[in-house]
Amino acid sequence: MDPKLENLKYDSNGLIPAIIQDHATGQVLMFAFMNKVAVEKTVETGKTHFYSRSRGKQWLKGESSGHVQHVKSINTDCDKDVLLVRVEQVGAACHDGYYSCFYRQFSKDEPDWKIEGVKVFDPEKVYKK
Amino acid sequence: MDPKLENLKYDSNGLIPAIIQDHATGQVLMFAFMNKVAVEKTVETGKTHFYSRSRGKQWLKGESSGHVQHVKSINTDCDKDVLLVRVEQVGAACHDGYYSCFYRQFSKDEPDWKIEGVKVFDPEKVYKK
Repeated sequence: MDPKLENLKYDSNGLIPAIIQDHATGQVLMFAFMNKVAVEKTVETGKTHFYSRSRGKQWLKGESSGHVQHVKSINTDCDKDVLLVRVEQVGAACHDGYYSCFYRQFSKDEPDWKIEGVKVFDPEKVYKK
Repeated sequence: MDPKLENLKYDSNGLIPAIIQDHATGQVLMFAFMNKVAVEKTVETGKTHFYSRSRGKQWLKGESSGHVQHVKSINTDCDKDVLLVRVEQVGAACHDGYYSCFYRQFSKDEPDWKIEGVKVFDPEKVYKK
């Protein structure tokens, strides 16, 4: 493994937070955790991989939906304990069918979170629930 | 407290990750954790507040440097367990003097992380070390 990636600061569970951003528009698409293997696979394959705490294993983003993310650049922060990955998103990032997972916006005057953005796909069809 | 903020999913330590983004350019500036009080203060004052795990208390971003962040919008993700806060940044976000904390970029061909971006201020002068 590239020593620059070895020297990132992983937390006590061996994880590092990763912010995924659309490389062309700057839109923040999703947030998830990677472990060392996921970071290594992301660099090697050029497609984002993450670590699922609930399933206890690495996963390729898009493995079910086909909505993979092609990596354009990887940055880290001043403390080297967070990653910012700029990607080209195939399809949409959110399993709810929105391009970005951050489709809910706070407004003091509304009773619930306001939906910002439109559905790109129908999750029931893509995931064959 | 607004029930929409109460219903966010805080982790076992009572924290929620917050991604801070420049509202005008889309540049991701920093990443930190908030607790319920920090979320409430951020909404009430219109300036970002975070929770410091090392110091065990809330803090106002910019309380030492004057580099506060004026909140333009607050979004949450599909799972309601991450926040995306768009801000107008005064000065610079990073205590190292860069506008964004994510100033280090990975390159396979370089021996170390490559610096992306320029220093906006001299940390030694701003923080009077």
